[in-house]
Amino acid sequence: MTRLHNDPVKFVDEAIEGFVAAHAQHVCQVPGGVIRNTRSEKGTVAVVIGGGSGHYPAFAGLVGQGLAHGAVIGNLFASPSAQQIYNVCKAADNGGGVLLSFGNYAGDVLHFGQARERLLREGIHCEIVAVTDDISSASLDELQKRRGIAGDLTVFKTAAAAAEEGYSLEEVVRVTRAANLRTRSMGVAFDGCTLPGADDALFHVPEDRMAVGMGIHGEPGISEQEVPSADELAELLVSHLLKEVPDVLVSANGSRAAVLLNGLGAIKYEELFVVYRRVNQLLKEAGIEIVEPEVGELVTSLDMAGASLTLFWLDDELERLWRAPVDSPAYRKGNSKPVAQIDGSKLDAPVEDTIPPASEASSEAAHCISEALSTIRQLIDDHVDELGRLDAIAGDGDHGIGMQRGAVAASEAANKALSSNAGAGTLLNLSAKAWADRAGGTSGAIWGVILNALSVTFGDQDKPTADHYARALIKAKEDVMSFGKAKAGDKTLVDALIPFSQTLEQQVSSGDDLANAWDKASAAAAEAAEATADMIPQIGRARPLAEKSLGTPDPGAKSLAMIVGAVQNIIQSHQR
Amino acid sequence: MTRLHNDPVKFVDEAIEGFVAAHAQHVCQVPGGVIRNTRSEKGTVAVVIGGGSGHYPAFAGLVGQGLAHGAVIGNLFASPSAQQIYNVCKAADNGGGVLLSFGNYAGDVLHFGQARERLLREGIHCEIVAVTDDISSASLDELQKRRGIAGDLTVFKTAAAAAEEGYSLEEVVRVTRAANLRTRSMGVAFDGCTLPGADDALFHVPEDRMAVGMGIHGEPGISEQEVPSADELAELLVSHLLKEVPDVLVSANGSRAAVLLNGLGAIKYEELFVVYRRVNQLLKEAGIEIVEPEVGELVTSLDMAGASLTLFWLDDELERLWRAPVDSPAYRKGNSKPVAQIDGSKLDAPVEDTIPPASEASSEAAHCISEALSTIRQLIDDHVDELGRLDAIAGDGDHGIGMQRGAVAASEAANKALSSNAGAGTLLNLSAKAWADRAGGTSGAIWGVILNALSVTFGDQDKPTADHYARALIKAKEDVMSFGKAKAGDKTLVDALIPFSQTLEQQVSSGDDLANAWDKASAAAAEAAEATADMIPQIGRARPLAEKSLGTPDPGAKSLAMIVGAVQNIIQSHQR
Repeated sequence: MTRLHNDPVKFVDEAIEGFVAAHAQHVCQVPGGVIRNTRSEKGTVAVVIGGGSGHYPAFAGLVGQGLAHGAVIGNLFASPSAQQIYNVCKAADNGGGVLLSFGNYAGDVLHFGQARERLLREGIHCEIVAVTDDISSASLDELQKRRGIAGDLTVFKTAAAAAEEGYSLEEVVRVTRAANLRTRSMGVAFDGCTLPGADDALFHVPEDRMAVGMGIHGEPGISEQEVPSADELAELLVSHLLKEVPDVLVSANGSRAAVLLNGLGAIKYEELFVVYRRVNQLLKEAGIEIVEPEVGELVTSLDMAGASLTLFWLDDELERLWRAPVDSPAYRKGNSKPVAQIDGSKLDAPVEDTIPPASEASSEAAHCISEALSTIRQLIDDHVDELGRLDAIAGDGDHGIGMQRGAVAASEAANKALSSNAGAGTLLNLSAKAWADRAGGTSGAIWGVILNALSVTFGDQDKPTADHYARALIKAKEDVMSFGKAKAGDKTLVDALIPFSQTLEQQVSSGDDLANAWDKASAAAAEAAEATADMIPQIGRARPLAEKSLGTPDPGAKSLAMIVGAVQNIIQSHQR
Repeated sequence: MTRLHNDPVKFVDEAIEGFVAAHAQHVCQVPGGVIRNTRSEKGTVAVVIGGGSGHYPAFAGLVGQGLAHGAVIGNLFASPSAQQIYNVCKAADNGGGVLLSFGNYAGDVLHFGQARERLLREGIHCEIVAVTDDISSASLDELQKRRGIAGDLTVFKTAAAAAEEGYSLEEVVRVTRAANLRTRSMGVAFDGCTLPGADDALFHVPEDRMAVGMGIHGEPGISEQEVPSADELAELLVSHLLKEVPDVLVSANGSRAAVLLNGLGAIKYEELFVVYRRVNQLLKEAGIEIVEPEVGELVTSLDMAGASLTLFWLDDELERLWRAPVDSPAYRKGNSKPVAQIDGSKLDAPVEDTIPPASEASSEAAHCISEALSTIRQLIDDHVDELGRLDAIAGDGDHGIGMQRGAVAASEAANKALSSNAGAGTLLNLSAKAWADRAGGTSGAIWGVILNALSVTFGDQDKPTADHYARALIKAKEDVMSFGKAKAGDKTLVDALIPFSQTLEQQVSSGDDLANAWDKASAAAAEAAEATADMIPQIGRARPLAEKSLGTPDPGAKSLAMIVGAVQNIIQSHQR
């Protein structure tokens, strides 16, 4: 379990601060993550990696000469926001374009994709290679659906070594894709980790059992069995991985592979070496030449008890790139050539937002909205564990903590905006940005979209009416569906947002006042949220096995229903 | 817990095999441990480190350019044998003498001391610096009694960097002693680790509690308290360490310190960074300049949940040595200069023992002794958990597994000796060497001494009589007491060995046959072993707090009594 923390909401920020203090010789902090503090050749490609926190050395520990130019640091097990990704890319860019690489999870795909579009709009060449090494997460013919686990390292390393050699972005993409296609991993788990401040682990595996193919956030695997001997585990992993060596991957002059035996946190070095002993024997018996293997903790999940084996099938070019030197906080090999350091304190400071003037009516509404955001913050604080538990059943358990970070950030941004006399639209806009940026994850982005829809509809001049609310929430529903690609019945927040926004609009159109209309809409949302318990989940990062979450409501739908329920009182009191 | 293993008795051997396979570019295996596989300058000092296994990266992971020249690898949490240490020193020696450095534990002090004496006798200059950084393990005026924990790294690093610079052995000793005096650590623990194959952890800390100052094998600390916040832990550790900065340690031009925040296994990187954030603030507030800090897993205890903070107070020379490059399997910094590799396969193979001719009577006795060793092996197998549990109460829980490794090795050596027609003396001599060498730890060495006393007394010509046995066991008692420095009443194996050997001698002198004499002696040993439960322990590596083991018999006395009890049947059947 995670024992050492202060306020759990600040865990990731404080970890980053400590990490940067400890590794000032390698990295400097920028909004959203860290970048190398060494100067790269002008015109070379910048490799930016990232994902949720809790996986150290991934991702921040892998920034440095010969590895990533920057890492975007999301909340625990939650993807970073598009804003964070954009910020890190802007800071890391050397003028040669940016390669984005990350594990293939829905939230990351969404946000890195958004960030890429924004960079392209601004004329920065940007490409994406999502890592799909986990053979247990989808079949070979659905390779593009596979998750990324410890194979992250071989793919990132390839991209970065190629960038260091001066490859063009197109060439970096070619070789990084090749590395991803030649990287195959398989993992097992014995027990889950506990998020800071949580009462229980994200998941458990029954004692004396091993979950085969379980993902690094506890995503369901392919089977369960008794805990094997170390040799039997080696045989299981090697035999599965050797089943997936397409002819095309075996180079003409014999099979060569880099081998990674990765511990997820609580499986320790001596155990890994006992397993590696047999892995080494088996691969040699299979005629495979092992090139610079790594045995240790490369991609972790806090103190999860688990391990994975990765084979990275090499050709001459990939072998050269794999052997190239690295000097990063948590991964070092060979001798890196000396280069100039940059002065982190000279990096551009983020620009403060300007607050446009607002009408008195809109300023008044801003106070009411700020009060609502503060209520939401309190509500989420009170239910953070419950939401985390709901999410842990089929997901990665980060919904409570993500919502908490978002609500805190939005409420703080609202207070700050109020002190500058912001109108309702500007206050909502700043709160939307703060929520999306600080919460991370898919739910963070979605709440950013919802608040933004309100912001755009309200503006800074009008006095928001029932009609504004109705229109804003219909827009929110449409924006969320277009952004998140979720349909009704996918067992997401959309399943509550549709009846909520439609009921609100119908009631307002038929002449109800806001409080009454909201009351009915809120009841519809609550009912719909509970009904998600009976649905079979269709999409989402961590839900490949439908049966796992049958019988529990979707945490996103549930928190939406809770929030609109709590806001009801404020609307009622202000209407009087 | 340790989940992945095959036969627990082979755990360490298999871990070494896997480690060497994974790090063939850094190390090669020699009997007793590993040495660098790069060539060092002729005439430079070799730094040989070592201790029990289970602490990776300590000790084998710290062998390489800029760090140790060799590491001796003991059994889990048990010191290596003098033979192992001698072997590694012989292999690592570059002609400039050997510095031995290790954590200050009784078993290690004993065995490294013995190895040093043997090297000196052979004309190899050899000195010892035992690491004593743990401020919780004894008061400042008993500094020489303190244990070594994560400060091992700063002391080893200093010694090795000085050796790399060409310092003479005398100068290496000077600077290594200075580093040890300027290195102070303090640790905390939340839960213990489970040895491979054991049913339960070595120790537990009550849930929601933290043991302050607990050692890396669960040795008692100074107090217990609620689990603090990360900031509070940083404040606790820093405040204690800053109380121990003698004026002489603060260099004239300001206070500089290397800082190590070490995780023992299950406290993970993100948590350590959150703690380090506050450590960094506090040290800066205290005006201390932090030089190249390290946050991570440097000296572990399998998956023990604990952490420690180390301050290494630098002067100019020590700072230069701390900053020097290292290229070892688990610790790397800077750029090491390219040097030639050695060919591990060309290292001297150990010489096979020659078997001198024996009389028929002695060969017959050898069969009987081999049978006894096989019985002992079975007996220990059956009681390995019980002995481990007894030892875990006040010690480090390795007694069961150590005895098991020793008994297996002795029995196998005896079988091999039999197949070459060895006499009783030679068979016992080879079994003694095998037991001491393979079991490691203090108990391993003591059983080596006991079997050796039998070997010397029996020789290869005589038919062993009751008188031989009586004399041999009196010799064993005297040798063990002289070797282990334990007196009657110290709550060790000696407390059972004294009444056993004296009763045997008295009964034989008064005309009893061997079976009857052994029977009475065995009863006396059993009674004495049980009586150790009422004694207050005086000595031993892991027994600073007497009350902790009151009420349980000493595991060494207990296993001696069990063994002599089991041998009784064989003596009886052979006498008939």
